[in-house]
Amino acid sequence: MDVLETIRLHRSIRKYEKRAITVAHKEAILRAACNGSTTGNMQLYSIIVTEDKEMMLRMAPYHFNQSMAINAPMILTFCADFNRFNRYCACRDAQTDAYNNLQSYHWAFTDAIIAAQNACVAAESLGIGLCWLGTITFNVDKFIEVLQLPENVIPVACIAFGYPAETPELTDKLPLEALVHHETYHNYSDADIDRLYYDKEHHPNTLQLLKENNLPNLAQIITQRRYIKKDNEAYEQVLIQALKKQCFMH
Amino acid sequence: MDVLETIRLHRSIRKYEKRAITVAHKEAILRAACNGSTTGNMQLYSIIVTEDKEMMLRMAPYHFNQSMAINAPMILTFCADFNRFNRYCACRDAQTDAYNNLQSYHWAFTDAIIAAQNACVAAESLGIGLCWLGTITFNVDKFIEVLQLPENVIPVACIAFGYPAETPELTDKLPLEALVHHETYHNYSDADIDRLYYDKEHHPNTLQLLKENNLPNLAQIITQRRYIKKDNEAYEQVLIQALKKQCFMH
Repeated sequence: MDVLETIRLHRSIRKYEKRAITVAHKEAILRAACNGSTTGNMQLYSIIVTEDKEMMLRMAPYHFNQSMAINAPMILTFCADFNRFNRYCACRDAQTDAYNNLQSYHWAFTDAIIAAQNACVAAESLGIGLCWLGTITFNVDKFIEVLQLPENVIPVACIAFGYPAETPELTDKLPLEALVHHETYHNYSDADIDRLYYDKEHHPNTLQLLKENNLPNLAQIITQRRYIKKDNEAYEQVLIQALKKQCFMH
Repeated sequence: MDVLETIRLHRSIRKYEKRAITVAHKEAILRAACNGSTTGNMQLYSIIVTEDKEMMLRMAPYHFNQSMAINAPMILTFCADFNRFNRYCACRDAQTDAYNNLQSYHWAFTDAIIAAQNACVAAESLGIGLCWLGTITFNVDKFIEVLQLPENVIPVACIAFGYPAETPELTDKLPLEALVHHETYHNYSDADIDRLYYDKEHHPNTLQLLKENNLPNLAQIITQRRYIKKDNEAYEQVLIQALKKQCFMH
């Protein structure tokens, strides 16, 4: 399928047919994932394929039992990975502690997300639906344990894949001018915010959310119900501890 | 162009025709960038378009004067951006400090790289070449200054785009089995490393590098010449200071 059309038709798919991803489709997705740009061609990522139901159910609570984490035929977890490269260095009398820092973590993080997004575009071009599970960075310590990740490996993205059993509407997005700046960043006046968020605030999905949450606007729903300061800060501590344990922070 | 074929043919392009990216192509790239998955549909990224030569030349030293940073007709810098969302919250009597932490930074980082990779795949499908400039996270403080990024905005990816004036070979990559794990992570024995790196170590590009660097293997070239511990740790400090200045770290 054509690239621009595939990307234009992107939406999160949360309900899947029961059947497994075919071997050919799985291979195409993984090959696409592993052919993106990477820092210095070091390929600083690993992909963990979850298809075993028992493994899925062990991880589901850490994904807050979202239905996608339980019912998807395949979950891919993308890890920032300096372990393999360090193992290579160890086998070649090269330094093995040059990348135990937050700068190097950024390179591996980037490599992993590039791979993840390549996997997503490839999957969608094959008619496979997907949904990102942001919970991977919330409960990162638990996923490190269950997936048996060694030092220098941190899971940064997790995506559920399956043949779609629903066709939701396309997601509402901010207009391009809200996201794009020319030459330098131009900060947003109050009037800019009103204008750029107008369509989103008047979208039927948003109006439905306001009713369900009994709150006056989307900003308050997100800050008071969805991504709450106290929780974010607790998950920040979990993440920092994991970065330390995995040797990317001191 | 077909997705799988576009991704299979990916290679970094470092030499570009002089002509500008057409308006239609630029619009297609930006639209694709802005249609990826994002955390809670908050779209936590901004894209800075650089086409002005003066701006390019101001930034070039911080990209170590790589030719792509000087000669590309267009550079896109992708930023993890909580500023716009916080501005929206401020305009709606919602909390504006819920996302001043490293956990929330991870969401915005992820959103920005998804957007960047969508832009890359879209561009390549249109016959436009590109090269990532990893230098963006090395000299992040300088880019924040030149691009006039407010608090809660950090540049995380930078990509030079142009119509290709070269057709390099496809990049050598590790075999799929080096990158993919099933159910749990399986660490690499010395024998695994020898086997999985065999093709890369015997690739003509690698043999050429060994000759040029007068070093016995690729691991030593990378650790002693390319990404050196002392430099990585200095750039780590720059990054940490920037994360603090932009309110994502305490």
